[in-house]
Amino acid sequence: MFQSFEVTARPEQGPPRLAALRTELERERLDGFIVPRADAHQGEYVAARDGRLAWLTGFTGSAGFCVALRNVAGVFVDGRYRTQVKAQVASDFTPVPWPDVSLSAWLKQQLPDGGKVAFDPWLHSAGQITATRAELQNCGIELVPSDNLVDRIWSDQPPPPMNPVKVHPLEFAGESAESKVSRLASALARNGRSAAVITLPDSIMWLLNIRGSDIPYNPVAHGFAILQADGHVDLFMAAKKLNGMDEHLGPRVSIHEPDAFLNAVAALEGAVQVDMGTLPQAVADVLGDRAVDGGDPCARPKACKNEAEIAGSAAAHLRDAAAVIETLCWLDAQPPGSLTETQVVTRLEENRRRDNALQDISFDTIAGTGPNGAIMHYRVTEETDSRLEDGHILVLDSGGQYLDGTTDITRTIPIGTVGDEEKTCFTRVLKGMIAMSQLRWPVGLAGRDIECIARAPLWAAGQDFNHGVGHGVGAYLSVHEGPQRLARVSHVPLEPGMILSNEPGYYREGAFGIRIENLLVVEEAPALPGADPERAMLCWRTLTYVPIDRRLIVVDMLTSAERDWLNAYHRDVAEKVRPRLSHAAQLWLDAATAPL
Amino acid sequence: MFQSFEVTARPEQGPPRLAALRTELERERLDGFIVPRADAHQGEYVAARDGRLAWLTGFTGSAGFCVALRNVAGVFVDGRYRTQVKAQVASDFTPVPWPDVSLSAWLKQQLPDGGKVAFDPWLHSAGQITATRAELQNCGIELVPSDNLVDRIWSDQPPPPMNPVKVHPLEFAGESAESKVSRLASALARNGRSAAVITLPDSIMWLLNIRGSDIPYNPVAHGFAILQADGHVDLFMAAKKLNGMDEHLGPRVSIHEPDAFLNAVAALEGAVQVDMGTLPQAVADVLGDRAVDGGDPCARPKACKNEAEIAGSAAAHLRDAAAVIETLCWLDAQPPGSLTETQVVTRLEENRRRDNALQDISFDTIAGTGPNGAIMHYRVTEETDSRLEDGHILVLDSGGQYLDGTTDITRTIPIGTVGDEEKTCFTRVLKGMIAMSQLRWPVGLAGRDIECIARAPLWAAGQDFNHGVGHGVGAYLSVHEGPQRLARVSHVPLEPGMILSNEPGYYREGAFGIRIENLLVVEEAPALPGADPERAMLCWRTLTYVPIDRRLIVVDMLTSAERDWLNAYHRDVAEKVRPRLSHAAQLWLDAATAPL
Repeated sequence: MFQSFEVTARPEQGPPRLAALRTELERERLDGFIVPRADAHQGEYVAARDGRLAWLTGFTGSAGFCVALRNVAGVFVDGRYRTQVKAQVASDFTPVPWPDVSLSAWLKQQLPDGGKVAFDPWLHSAGQITATRAELQNCGIELVPSDNLVDRIWSDQPPPPMNPVKVHPLEFAGESAESKVSRLASALARNGRSAAVITLPDSIMWLLNIRGSDIPYNPVAHGFAILQADGHVDLFMAAKKLNGMDEHLGPRVSIHEPDAFLNAVAALEGAVQVDMGTLPQAVADVLGDRAVDGGDPCARPKACKNEAEIAGSAAAHLRDAAAVIETLCWLDAQPPGSLTETQVVTRLEENRRRDNALQDISFDTIAGTGPNGAIMHYRVTEETDSRLEDGHILVLDSGGQYLDGTTDITRTIPIGTVGDEEKTCFTRVLKGMIAMSQLRWPVGLAGRDIECIARAPLWAAGQDFNHGVGHGVGAYLSVHEGPQRLARVSHVPLEPGMILSNEPGYYREGAFGIRIENLLVVEEAPALPGADPERAMLCWRTLTYVPIDRRLIVVDMLTSAERDWLNAYHRDVAEKVRPRLSHAAQLWLDAATAPL
Repeated sequence: MFQSFEVTARPEQGPPRLAALRTELERERLDGFIVPRADAHQGEYVAARDGRLAWLTGFTGSAGFCVALRNVAGVFVDGRYRTQVKAQVASDFTPVPWPDVSLSAWLKQQLPDGGKVAFDPWLHSAGQITATRAELQNCGIELVPSDNLVDRIWSDQPPPPMNPVKVHPLEFAGESAESKVSRLASALARNGRSAAVITLPDSIMWLLNIRGSDIPYNPVAHGFAILQADGHVDLFMAAKKLNGMDEHLGPRVSIHEPDAFLNAVAALEGAVQVDMGTLPQAVADVLGDRAVDGGDPCARPKACKNEAEIAGSAAAHLRDAAAVIETLCWLDAQPPGSLTETQVVTRLEENRRRDNALQDISFDTIAGTGPNGAIMHYRVTEETDSRLEDGHILVLDSGGQYLDGTTDITRTIPIGTVGDEEKTCFTRVLKGMIAMSQLRWPVGLAGRDIECIARAPLWAAGQDFNHGVGHGVGAYLSVHEGPQRLARVSHVPLEPGMILSNEPGYYREGAFGIRIENLLVVEEAPALPGADPERAMLCWRTLTYVPIDRRLIVVDMLTSAERDWLNAYHRDVAEKVRPRLSHAAQLWLDAATAPL
């Protein structure tokens, strides 16, 4: 179960696979094929059989796609992966900075005389295909659905996952599946919709209070569902995953094999609610005009955690904090140069697993020391494993899946004696992280309306970071959960109960990386004397309680309010987590949380 | 020429006019008529004959519209005018909080059985009509174009303005009309457009380096233009306004009477660039499919001021600052209770006019003392004129039009001894204003991405203000100029040369108002040591140099960086403006700019 450091894809495997794919293109008289990092459920993590992008190109990032044309193969990656992609793909592949360069713009440039570019309609959302087709209008380039050409040439492609589903207890869910189904079905009926098609596994897990293990780190099972406006649910999931679930699912849920899904969709009548942003094009083709783009009906209620879920998350965070603090204490006791990144990752996972509550880690731990810290989504492998040298700073980003909640925390740790530049940059990141933690804002705003608060201290120094400030987090579900985000692209209003990360960072390529991350939950802000009486405001409540390294802080750069926040935070850390620690870690914590 | 304090509309005049309008509705078998605060040019200020909304309803705000149905008449106003509208309209009119309640939502509520609602197609943009019609689909409510029913019943409606046009000298424009026309025409040709239809007067003024005086406070003449892709311009403007302009306009500009405009539009061939957001529906109807919504081609180049325009604006601001400071010095010498708002307005205008460079004020000065300060766009009249009492704070928002630039400045001034609550709120507004002034941000961001920086200090206290942080400002053109704004709705990237206001405020209804406003110009930020080398950043350069009242500042609430900013700003004010002041004002300035 432990995190693997195996090198899963090698640049040199790419070119022969690309050549085989191009043979298929010729056979089908196609000019190109699009290979996304996606499955039919548009999740961030995919099962082994859906790892087509990494298999073909060597690029193992969590987002991106390759467009293989006859004479060029673009690998589209976002700001987080600009450095990583260069190291992972062979020269036969051309990294493309996406979304700065859009798929359509690149295709127009590469195919000036037009052409036929194929895609697997299960792996692309209707929204993506519609938008790209609109951008390609009148230029002679056509997007055509096709079999998956990678599956044809991938001889040892793994089978679909087939792991057992379990009940998610009411104690942690906070609301029965019956109640969820009935309130969502009522809303569908009220809005004149006959049904909703649900293709996101975490929505199905949430709705039915079940959990699975079909993909790494996410307690979900693959499947599809149709929620009928009369309160009935059709669940399309392999029966062998659902052994013993009959009683929990009850008579309101009918179980069908997944291959019955498209026919069932075809048989629906009336207006059917879908989320065009994630609905596979293959399903949209069958639904046609009956599809109403009203979003996944589970998205918002799932995002707004109830009291049991928030209490569970808070409990999971304290349990998780103890494991992280034990690790930090141990790390500090090792001389500089004595450890490598994989040893830190393994020790951290051991400390998390020591508590039997851990179900899984919530993603591959990122442990990047020195220059590796600048690779935002660095996954250490046997090949890259680096020694924590004197003068390095280490970015340690990790999380756990517990029955009562999902955690995600990043701390940056000095190794030996660290330079002033690292400390100055760290303090700027910290100022942004504190500014966001302390923020109060009016009801109705979205992530994009407030995210610059966490960037302004870096901007003042001509610095910034190429990722969002934060993402939504599930309740024993995906560690990256929509629809809410603290990002410039997110126009979803923040609402009480939403859990988000607050994780500004700073990355200097070839030198070092910094990130500080806490999870926060949105709350109604308590009334203040002198406040506008009619203006409802929201604020954050912190869930993560682990010290922020005092040795990296340039105290003079903090305002007194910032120092007060940090000291109060450290007081809370000590109060909440100290009783859970070993004696050695308690002593370490006392020093780490001493007032500045 | 002086600002008038006449009460231009009275609540009691509304009901008989509304009754007359309803007689027209009956005659035409219509269910309603929409009366916007707009002319065919979608400007913020309108000529007297276009003041239909105020004539009908009594509401004199700069934005809004009335929808007169048979049995209810809604007056739609935004957050700035929620208080004002209540005081200005009779009970026959129902204020509607817009855009919280949209036109279509309100119509659906008021006309459950459907109906025909008429509008004047010259006074509504194609974008507005298209969007509203889309929202009204399938509900039986139809928007139909019609003659203007208000014009029919307004027996003494003033004639269209007919004032002479003047040349705007190259010294201030910084680029010849020939050069502007030819670069914009080339861009049209490059993009495959045969022509652009320009209906915004300030765009026409900018393009042809001319200025007019058809509407109050804005140096523009009403007219329309067609910019042909071959570099020819057809100008549709009454010939009597253009006496003696032949030489300046030259052979590339053909002059036509305005009533020839629609026929000329009808005769255009090929793709015609328009701005659907401002193009009158009447013109869109004629253009049909030939219209391409590419925006007003003048908007972006006009917004990005050239060196001559920026230098001119800076010069105008120092001249204007002297007039404002003389007024503040005089005001401080008067005992509390001895002045009224109109006396302050008149004195300020006198001081501005003392310098012969003033062409006009740039809008009706807002001078709101005590509770009047909470009315964001308060225009003092003989009826509302209030005494500046001990304990009041006075919001003074004003500006001037000079040949070399347009100014807009707000200061808040204590009268006698002011309460702590006012000072605390003022200091929060100041913190936001300083935070924005000091901001550095990455190239590519829009107003919405950074505007919360100016609000966060108020949010922290549960407070906020119901207007944007800032608006674009022209170069001897409109004091409110698009497309850039510092507002949550603005997604136009900020670019070097754009001038914007930075004017956070705070308003407590029935008690007091606060606003602090400087104009700023966007510049490329100078390189900083340690900054990300590839990351281009922008920053502000301040144009406005007038002291910010030290007596309203709670010094302990400022960080040392904020205090440093204020002291440096005041040093600059003293250095730049002191030589222009009377001896008395110099002494006043020395105290007003002493370090905190």
